[in-house]
Amino acid sequence: MSDGTPASPRERELYQELVCLWKALQEETDGQWGRTLPLGDYFVDRWEKARRLGFGEGTSIYDSALVIGKVQVGQQTWIGPHTVLDGSGGLEIGDWCSISAGVQVYTHDTVARVLTAGKAGPEREATRIGSRCYLGPNTVVAKGVTIGNGCVIGANSLVLQDIPTGSKAFGTPCRVRGEVDVPPIELREDSAGDSPDPS
Amino acid sequence: MSDGTPASPRERELYQELVCLWKALQEETDGQWGRTLPLGDYFVDRWEKARRLGFGEGTSIYDSALVIGKVQVGQQTWIGPHTVLDGSGGLEIGDWCSISAGVQVYTHDTVARVLTAGKAGPEREATRIGSRCYLGPNTVVAKGVTIGNGCVIGANSLVLQDIPTGSKAFGTPCRVRGEVDVPPIELREDSAGDSPDPS
Amino acid sequence: MSDGTPASPRERELYQELVCLWKALQEETDGQWGRTLPLGDYFVDRWEKARRLGFGEGTSIYDSALVIGKVQVGQQTWIGPHTVLDGSGGLEIGDWCSISAGVQVYTHDTVARVLTAGKAGPEREATRIGSRCYLGPNTVVAKGVTIGNGCVIGANSLVLQDIPTGSKAFGTPCRVRGEVDVPPIELREDSAGDSPDPS
Repeated sequence: MSDGTPASPRERELYQELVCLWKALQEETDGQWGRTLPLGDYFVDRWEKARRLGFGEGTSIYDSALVIGKVQVGQQTWIGPHTVLDGSGGLEIGDWCSISAGVQVYTHDTVARVLTAGKAGPEREATRIGSRCYLGPNTVVAKGVTIGNGCVIGANSLVLQDIPTGSKAFGTPCRVRGEVDVPPIELREDSAGDSPDPS
Repeated sequence: MSDGTPASPRERELYQELVCLWKALQEETDGQWGRTLPLGDYFVDRWEKARRLGFGEGTSIYDSALVIGKVQVGQQTWIGPHTVLDGSGGLEIGDWCSISAGVQVYTHDTVARVLTAGKAGPEREATRIGSRCYLGPNTVVAKGVTIGNGCVIGANSLVLQDIPTGSKAFGTPCRVRGEVDVPPIELREDSAGDSPDPS
Repeated sequence: MSDGTPASPRERELYQELVCLWKALQEETDGQWGRTLPLGDYFVDRWEKARRLGFGEGTSIYDSALVIGKVQVGQQTWIGPHTVLDGSGGLEIGDWCSISAGVQVYTHDTVARVLTAGKAGPEREATRIGSRCYLGPNTVVAKGVTIGNGCVIGANSLVLQDIPTGSKAFGTPCRVRGEVDVPPIELREDSAGDSPDPS
């Protein structure tokens, strides 16, 4: 907008109020938490959204995450912005996972629908992700896949086949490259890790 | 926000109203359609946005899709969230396509602009995507590319060259790996396929 | 929503006002700039957001970009939608860069945190991106990486190691493939390049 002048006086007023509200929210949140959020995340609390979806204690999910159908998520899992969780074919995710920004997890696809111009419907299959899994940024998990506990999936991967428990895997298509080394547990010096607003 | 207290009383009131409105919309939409949307998608109807852009009958496009310049899209095409359709150099997309979440289709790039610190402008070239094309999640299509009808492009691909009609292609850079098998048409048992709110 | 009827009359009214406001903003912005934005971008000015973050003159950043911690950005840099800039470990980005849509730049990771079910905290390391760098769409830059001046990083890359000045690099993991050719500077015929609202 060049001049901020939508059609009616009421709309014009609401527009100005929202612009001012954004400035106030940006300033307050940046001052308190050191972060600047997309507009929707100022109104949608990540933990409240997770609770309303029936996810476990301590799990959070950004406003820009699109959630379709029946998705079950355990405790203390972090679900980032710009994600898609498709539970239309049944999706389960465990405890203490990181579902990084840009990750998309599917339980349907529309390839047959597209190729037949809608004569075939979408195909659906359940997907399962265990506990303590790290899914790197922009990773895509196809319908029907099972990922075991304690797996690390590298960024930009496309997971088309099952990944066994404790695997380190990456690539498009995603392949197992080794076993995960569980790090020796260190004292946490970083207070941000205990904050109610961890990244 | 820790305490939900922006600057002025009017802003504070509007903030609370929007938080309550989100809760009402989330509950209603989840109850009726089994989905939880990013905030913007509660206010922006996917079909209305497509109509306003002049796209064909039955085509839908999520609120988070950024549309630049002149984009022509046919009928019954699904355009997902977190996408970019850049028509600044002229973009055409056919009927019955799936433009999956995270897909970006370009008709310009700014490589020369960046390398010359703005002395060279953006470069533009028209891009065309045929009908019945499936573009997998997070696929990027560069300026000047033509993708024929009935193609399946795998997730996480980067399409730099033309893809002939009926091709199965994937990778970064994207290469043709075979021909598409059009599935034998099956009776659609899944009522979701007929819903006005398909995934 | 099928009928646009949230719980209370006030909420119902606010809902209708916002839907009408979106229509007015969409029409006006499309008419003036030839673009249709995600809802948040009508309220959050890209240059104003950059100024509030202390970024340099002429730098812009879309509403859907999530900014965490301390991020320093120079002048005339373009930061696209659906991006993540994580400065929790200290992030610097130079002048005249293109941080394309879907790019994520990190200074922490939570792999150890996930694998130990929270007993280990996040790990942090500073990341630096020079001036005149083009980061292609959906590229992910890991914590601790330094990218020199004048680099071109291809789309869908995962940058795990330092990239020297003047490099052309791509892939997952990202590797140097050659040197950047700085294009001979051409007269800019494209007026869009001088617009206050360039893509």
